[in-house]
Amino acid sequence: MRTNFTYTKIALAAIFSLLASSVSAQQKASKVSLPKLSMADILKSSQASDWRVLNPDNTLYLEMEKGRVVIELAPEFAPKNVANIKALVKEGYFDGLAMIRSHDNYVAQWGDPGEKREFKNAAKKVEGEFTVKYKNDAPFTRLPDVDGYAPQVGHVNSFAAARDPKTQTTWLTHCYGAIGVARGNETDSGNGSSLYAVTGHAPRNLDRNITVVGRVMYGIELLSSLPRGTGALGFYEKPEERTLIKSVRIAADVPEAERIKLEVLRTDTANFKALVEAQRNRGGDWYKFAANHIELCNVPIPVRVVK
Amino acid sequence: MRTNFTYTKIALAAIFSLLASSVSAQQKASKVSLPKLSMADILKSSQASDWRVLNPDNTLYLEMEKGRVVIELAPEFAPKNVANIKALVKEGYFDGLAMIRSHDNYVAQWGDPGEKREFKNAAKKVEGEFTVKYKNDAPFTRLPDVDGYAPQVGHVNSFAAARDPKTQTTWLTHCYGAIGVARGNETDSGNGSSLYAVTGHAPRNLDRNITVVGRVMYGIELLSSLPRGTGALGFYEKPEERTLIKSVRIAADVPEAERIKLEVLRTDTANFKALVEAQRNRGGDWYKFAANHIELCNVPIPVRVVK
Repeated sequence: MRTNFTYTKIALAAIFSLLASSVSAQQKASKVSLPKLSMADILKSSQASDWRVLNPDNTLYLEMEKGRVVIELAPEFAPKNVANIKALVKEGYFDGLAMIRSHDNYVAQWGDPGEKREFKNAAKKVEGEFTVKYKNDAPFTRLPDVDGYAPQVGHVNSFAAARDPKTQTTWLTHCYGAIGVARGNETDSGNGSSLYAVTGHAPRNLDRNITVVGRVMYGIELLSSLPRGTGALGFYEKPEERTLIKSVRIAADVPEAERIKLEVLRTDTANFKALVEAQRNRGGDWYKFAANHIELCNVPIPVRVVK
Repeated sequence: MRTNFTYTKIALAAIFSLLASSVSAQQKASKVSLPKLSMADILKSSQASDWRVLNPDNTLYLEMEKGRVVIELAPEFAPKNVANIKALVKEGYFDGLAMIRSHDNYVAQWGDPGEKREFKNAAKKVEGEFTVKYKNDAPFTRLPDVDGYAPQVGHVNSFAAARDPKTQTTWLTHCYGAIGVARGNETDSGNGSSLYAVTGHAPRNLDRNITVVGRVMYGIELLSSLPRGTGALGFYEKPEERTLIKSVRIAADVPEAERIKLEVLRTDTANFKALVEAQRNRGGDWYKFAANHIELCNVPIPVRVVK
């Protein structure tokens, strides 16, 4: 039902925006101005080197009845938490668990509803990695656009991120599709056994308050379209409302034939810079007012399925 | 299934954020610091005068099999478009039509999939009202927080809005739940017969490019959890994928007994200012880092069901 439904398709589609059904061929034919390059144009002109293959060692396949959600982890931003999540995956911790929460305009969260499943090798407590130190020569494609939540925002290795030069710290931001490690009040009370994906307007207030470990690269719509939970915080009230997680696997542990080959647009290229500009000031005949701005979480980071 | 599931519940819930299932009673008991007021505290202390009843003449009930979506229109921002939408509703235009599009992290859109339904009294073309003029003494509760998309942002009559003092224009912003009038390339090609609701990260790039007429005040989760369309732009490819719209009615035309009484928090009060501050710098034991900022579309505008 959702074959080939990728972020790329969504992102491409977004630029065409909100066509009324009454757009006539005549209107389309009346195009006279030379439009600026659109995002679609820029992606068309991209070279193989503008894309990178997801790292199978850091890629998770979360399998549900309706399909596969693909998450790429970013160990450079949360080495201890990523290591523990991978340990949990390797011991089969998530297999047979469930989506336990769908909180509208916020997050979908999964884990063990009964809180009874035992840990084998994974740690019960992992230090929160809300920010990490960076070195001056660390890669960072900075956005020139103002941001209220961080001194600097931009992209690192195809992840949306922010930095504070004063403290020399960096962190992944809570944009749509970001994956975080649920925790209690103590900063080391999370361990990766319950994870959430952002499925609403970016809750950037969570930045620097919780560990972000990666991003959904494919299949986010399987999480964002889950029925909302009617309990407090969007938790499901009845077991039958929960969606089964058949399994979670590391891509590298899955036979090649069963993998999905995804490439994400690199964010340290001229192509990406052009794409951001095309979104900051949209080309085409539809837009009448140029925003001359793009907010970090409105920057698309296209993913494509490679045959 | 979603009785009493309101924005208020969602908004209240949001402040408790992402509890890991492992929060122990012991951790809760270790609370020693006096927390700042939370949003829940502030709402508890609100007076009757801090709320306003939705105007039944400008409130739409969109009825689907799974329940009712309630939209409040803001004629002061789009008088011609709101008048035409109300004319369409009064002539029964939407009854039996469908949700035609669910575009992940963007919008849900409804209208006539066949584009064959006739207009009776409503106009086929309505001038776009992307911005409107405002007077210096027009009410506007300005947010002090920086915004990249507009010179000034804030709230008018419980709607998120922006202003440009240079041009003395104001407009409703594309925050989550905003309702807009789909159009083609021509600015007068929309007429309200196809409307969309924002169901993803605020596409503020649409601001000043299309007419925003109001906001979903209740039942947004019925739109945001729709299965995503697999066609271009998230349109449904097969008729059976579409969700029926049983009817759309103006609340004032619905018998009192069948109405749902909703109140929205007023945004021109000290209570609202306190609420915004409680969200800008969160109270409680969970938050470790104070954002000292709130983005316009992260400001909750609570709605409550009155018995």
